[in-house]
Amino acid sequence: MTITSSTVRSRTDLCTAIENELGGLIGKRASAATVYGPDFARLWELAGQNVLGGKFVRPLLLMETYDALNQTQQSHQNHQETGTAESRHRETAISIAAAIELLHYAFLLHDDVIDGDLVRRGHPNLIGSLLEEAGETARETSGADGTRAGSVLHWAQTGGILMGDMLLAATHQSFARADLPHELRLRLLDLLEHTINETVAGEQLDVGLGDGVIAPDLQTILVMCGYKTATYTFELPLRAAAALAGADFAVENALATAGRHLGLAFQLQDDLLSTFGDPRRHGKDPFSDLREGKETAIIAHARTTTAWPDIEPFFGRPELSVGDGEHVRRHLTRCGAEAFVEGLIEEQMQAFNHQLTSTIPASVRNVLLDLAVQLEGRQS
Amino acid sequence: MTITSSTVRSRTDLCTAIENELGGLIGKRASAATVYGPDFARLWELAGQNVLGGKFVRPLLLMETYDALNQTQQSHQNHQETGTAESRHRETAISIAAAIELLHYAFLLHDDVIDGDLVRRGHPNLIGSLLEEAGETARETSGADGTRAGSVLHWAQTGGILMGDMLLAATHQSFARADLPHELRLRLLDLLEHTINETVAGEQLDVGLGDGVIAPDLQTILVMCGYKTATYTFELPLRAAAALAGADFAVENALATAGRHLGLAFQLQDDLLSTFGDPRRHGKDPFSDLREGKETAIIAHARTTTAWPDIEPFFGRPELSVGDGEHVRRHLTRCGAEAFVEGLIEEQMQAFNHQLTSTIPASVRNVLLDLAVQLEGRQS
Repeated sequence: MTITSSTVRSRTDLCTAIENELGGLIGKRASAATVYGPDFARLWELAGQNVLGGKFVRPLLLMETYDALNQTQQSHQNHQETGTAESRHRETAISIAAAIELLHYAFLLHDDVIDGDLVRRGHPNLIGSLLEEAGETARETSGADGTRAGSVLHWAQTGGILMGDMLLAATHQSFARADLPHELRLRLLDLLEHTINETVAGEQLDVGLGDGVIAPDLQTILVMCGYKTATYTFELPLRAAAALAGADFAVENALATAGRHLGLAFQLQDDLLSTFGDPRRHGKDPFSDLREGKETAIIAHARTTTAWPDIEPFFGRPELSVGDGEHVRRHLTRCGAEAFVEGLIEEQMQAFNHQLTSTIPASVRNVLLDLAVQLEGRQS
Repeated sequence: MTITSSTVRSRTDLCTAIENELGGLIGKRASAATVYGPDFARLWELAGQNVLGGKFVRPLLLMETYDALNQTQQSHQNHQETGTAESRHRETAISIAAAIELLHYAFLLHDDVIDGDLVRRGHPNLIGSLLEEAGETARETSGADGTRAGSVLHWAQTGGILMGDMLLAATHQSFARADLPHELRLRLLDLLEHTINETVAGEQLDVGLGDGVIAPDLQTILVMCGYKTATYTFELPLRAAAALAGADFAVENALATAGRHLGLAFQLQDDLLSTFGDPRRHGKDPFSDLREGKETAIIAHARTTTAWPDIEPFFGRPELSVGDGEHVRRHLTRCGAEAFVEGLIEEQMQAFNHQLTSTIPASVRNVLLDLAVQLEGRQS
């Protein structure tokens, strides 16, 4: 398919293309899965519902960046030519974009198993759905309620591990089968490997912090945030777009750096919203991070202040009351932890903006600025 | 590298080649892992120790079959030619063989997480090692013993999930990068996808049987045994060898069928040894399956006999005494369950032998007979 500057695709068109690709990848596997019986097929059905109900943040970032890079390159070329070598990879770009969404969902699932979570965004996640369904069957057949609760939870969490494995496999299958020149496919496979290593390292740090195996200093927490989320959410789609569009390594690196700064800003802002945000506007429980004892940059700063002895007794207490929560929140503001993290976000945004003035083409700058506006929208 | 019938490789040479390949795959990643700190690097170190200490059953089966197929094909060809197109894939075959060992270890790790196992063959597995190490650190720093036992176990099991993910990724990377013609690489990728689906379906059935979510009838148990182990242990290496050696689909299918029968026979024999074997000779706890309440073909048959009411009260009792265990074992023999499973093994071996008389070349027949002898060796 030929792309010219006059055929800028709307986000709706992109969403449809990504949804179709994901529907194909999952639908094919869901059909094949029925051979192995209803329980196995159910894994793919549930995964399909969850993946297709997503917002496609990562695939959209990849495709918008890819299209913007091609636009730039084409405006430098002879307009008589119909399509460049790079724009011929657009179908492959969509399949890689969809694969990145599968990777995201594989990470979420294993993260949910590790955290023992059964709910995501107010709905049962795959594990929660399996738990409900197996629980109902158990009650119907045995008549007893909750007698085998441990076994049913084990069954449901096993489903989470196994479905995560299959999504991780499906991600690799898409990368491995990409219809691309050998060198370019290897470049994408390197990128996938780097991304998985860094995300796993981030997840391990996060769990080590939560389990008290790794010391919660600020530097470790910032590194963890970058590894665990920014790498696969921002750096991976941006680098993949650059590689597929045939951009220079300088452009790819500038995009990746910009993406990392933006990703870290998003993560830090998530922490602020979770602690200080208005739950009616942001949909987050204002005290769940405090109840869990989550080691965030806010807490890391508070630990270094004289306010910590007033905060510590309440930190990580599952039964934290609203009154106690508000008490802790006031202390976190007064000791400067809130302002400190706002400052960190500001620094990341400055570094992000600085990258935009570098080798990043103007059309791509707009894609990134658009993302940054979403960040600011959440702050207001 | 050229292969002629005069250069039949010894098993020791093959082991060395496989070990070198695995050492390279893991060593490269273990070095790169140090960038992410000691805890992340430790995952690769432990995985390396465990993988390289293995017996390479699957890679050896692949390479011996591959070499045997090439020998056959070359004896049909002009001896003046130095090497066929197929024998030129030998280096790739070694890398695929090594990747299959990584896949085996990924499955073992996730299986250990799912089963809560900390030991394999009498030694701490990766999870057990992480548990010991983090436990020691916790005691050193806190002075208290076992206060954070739950957290440390969570940390160790998370390590098992994450390392399994990275090994699954590494397996796919080797398949994706295989230096092969496009069609052949796709054939191997299809095979990998099929194998993972079937193994996951088998694992899910096994867990469902254990958790009482799936009814323990004989048919389900036999299907589970085939899916969970025979597919990736026998069918995958045999099919991969056939594909890499350029064998006909008829040969590939005959090998796969023979492999499945042999794999099921092995699995059934494992169950017999675990229940009736001499632990001093086979190294298995004679009553662990009974204590766990493992749904085997032996138990499925016993359930259909009048002996079941005498067996059921002891089945799945963690505190089963040696006396009780011997009581159950006598009942399982008397009710015909032992003989029934011996009959199933006999059937599988007959079907295996029947396949050997089909399209399978004589040289490959010897590789398979060699495996079958190992099975008989365990029975004696």
